[in-house]
Amino acid sequence: MSDRIARLAVIGVGLIGGSLARALRLAGKVGHVVGCGRGEANLKRGVELGVLDSYTHDVAEAVADADMVFVAVPLGAMREVFAQMNGKLRADAVVTDGGSAKGSVIADFNAVCGQHAAQFVPGHPIAGTERNGVEASFAELYLERRVIITPTGHTAPDATQRVRAMWQACGAEVIEMGVRHHDEVLAATSHLPHMLAFGLVDALARMEDHDDIFRYAAGGFRDFTRIASSNPVMWRDICIANRDALSRMLTSFAEEMQALAVSIETGDAERLLEIFQRAKDARDSYVDGLGSDA
Amino acid sequence: MSDRIARLAVIGVGLIGGSLARALRLAGKVGHVVGCGRGEANLKRGVELGVLDSYTHDVAEAVADADMVFVAVPLGAMREVFAQMNGKLRADAVVTDGGSAKGSVIADFNAVCGQHAAQFVPGHPIAGTERNGVEASFAELYLERRVIITPTGHTAPDATQRVRAMWQACGAEVIEMGVRHHDEVLAATSHLPHMLAFGLVDALARMEDHDDIFRYAAGGFRDFTRIASSNPVMWRDICIANRDALSRMLTSFAEEMQALAVSIETGDAERLLEIFQRAKDARDSYVDGLGSDA
Repeated sequence: MSDRIARLAVIGVGLIGGSLARALRLAGKVGHVVGCGRGEANLKRGVELGVLDSYTHDVAEAVADADMVFVAVPLGAMREVFAQMNGKLRADAVVTDGGSAKGSVIADFNAVCGQHAAQFVPGHPIAGTERNGVEASFAELYLERRVIITPTGHTAPDATQRVRAMWQACGAEVIEMGVRHHDEVLAATSHLPHMLAFGLVDALARMEDHDDIFRYAAGGFRDFTRIASSNPVMWRDICIANRDALSRMLTSFAEEMQALAVSIETGDAERLLEIFQRAKDARDSYVDGLGSDA
Repeated sequence: MSDRIARLAVIGVGLIGGSLARALRLAGKVGHVVGCGRGEANLKRGVELGVLDSYTHDVAEAVADADMVFVAVPLGAMREVFAQMNGKLRADAVVTDGGSAKGSVIADFNAVCGQHAAQFVPGHPIAGTERNGVEASFAELYLERRVIITPTGHTAPDATQRVRAMWQACGAEVIEMGVRHHDEVLAATSHLPHMLAFGLVDALARMEDHDDIFRYAAGGFRDFTRIASSNPVMWRDICIANRDALSRMLTSFAEEMQALAVSIETGDAERLLEIFQRAKDARDSYVDGLGSDA
């Protein structure tokens, strides 16, 4: 089977979906790209930019002749999209997605499009910026980035192989992982930090003298809170989609912060130094794996 | 009285102290700069770089003829340094510092050097990087940065004016603030975020599969945890120096994170969106005041 995709349907044409289309085009691995979404202006812009060849607002129409379907909508909209493609897919069409929680996406797919389960390959490109929309998309987004795929017990090996080849054509490293493990790793490295950044900025914004508070914040605060500028709707959906792993991890982290507050209050110098030193060592030694320092 | 400093003693010659000396030299506002510290190599390098004119390991000797004394040692070393200068200062010498908590520094000064209290102007330049040592110092560190001074009830207006002029000569904006207010603002914008970053990296490093965890961390994680690479000894000291404000704030934040975990667990979409939206709005609107985005 060729790695080439004859007709790619991108459901949700933003940074993630648009960049996939651009990268595949650059690699010469895709024929026709059809975009599907709600916003007419964004889809039109996608055609103008050469990201899309055509577009529609109708999911069933978008997937009709596609041999590859990429769903990049907010997690809360996944089930509805899957329901709309149920029965409309070509038998050999592979479906994959870009959601940053996988357990919920799989449950959604199986609930409303289960007859196609062998052709569904859940995926998650670890890439992105705070920017949104097709305008922000670029072909190099996935270059040397990791894409995690979490095939289920139903997924056919051929389907997995096609998704793997698609991401490799974009320059990404593809890693297979269990669903539960994915959701725990992402809760720890992405979802939890976002909760802390959103939570901190919100807490400060609610303080009486918040003007002063923000005025004296230094550069470190800016970096620390950058992720609090992310899309609130997307993050509401992520929280709910990964609620088990995330709520467990956030509860446990809050308990540790309570204990740390006690160590500070009682002036437990030894314990404080131990924690800070271990954190610094870990960050300094793992930092090379985290991409370039801007 | 001239704004010129005839003899500046810098106790603790690192990024903060070294950059002050460089900036004053560049502005033509200082005569002789004497450095004082423990590490011979660092002090020698200070002379080689032209930051210092001379150096000594003895605090009493360093301050003997100085008309301005700047103390930039970790908060836990402040009291010992103040004790060593007690009775050795010129009557007209102004003493100031760079500590990022002010209540504890004032208590230390009053306890061991109280007879000089009229000439003591507690200060805090809101500037710095993760780098340390005189090698990292540069004359522009304070350019367009804020320096908070917190004169006490004992501080003479003339002394305050001299410190104000010194920082203005470095290009900084000088702001006067109450001691308690300073310590609360800094707990919120700097000390608390550092606790969360240190705490998060430490929590992840203690997880069984921490290799995986760090491997899949994306760019946002790198920014979020950058401050966890800060100096552990310095931060242990800051925690203890500002223990009241910081432990109170950390406890209250941990309680909010417990509540957020419940909202996630119960899928309270409305509350989640409200928090994230308020945080995003606050960050986006205050972001211009936080220095340039790298």
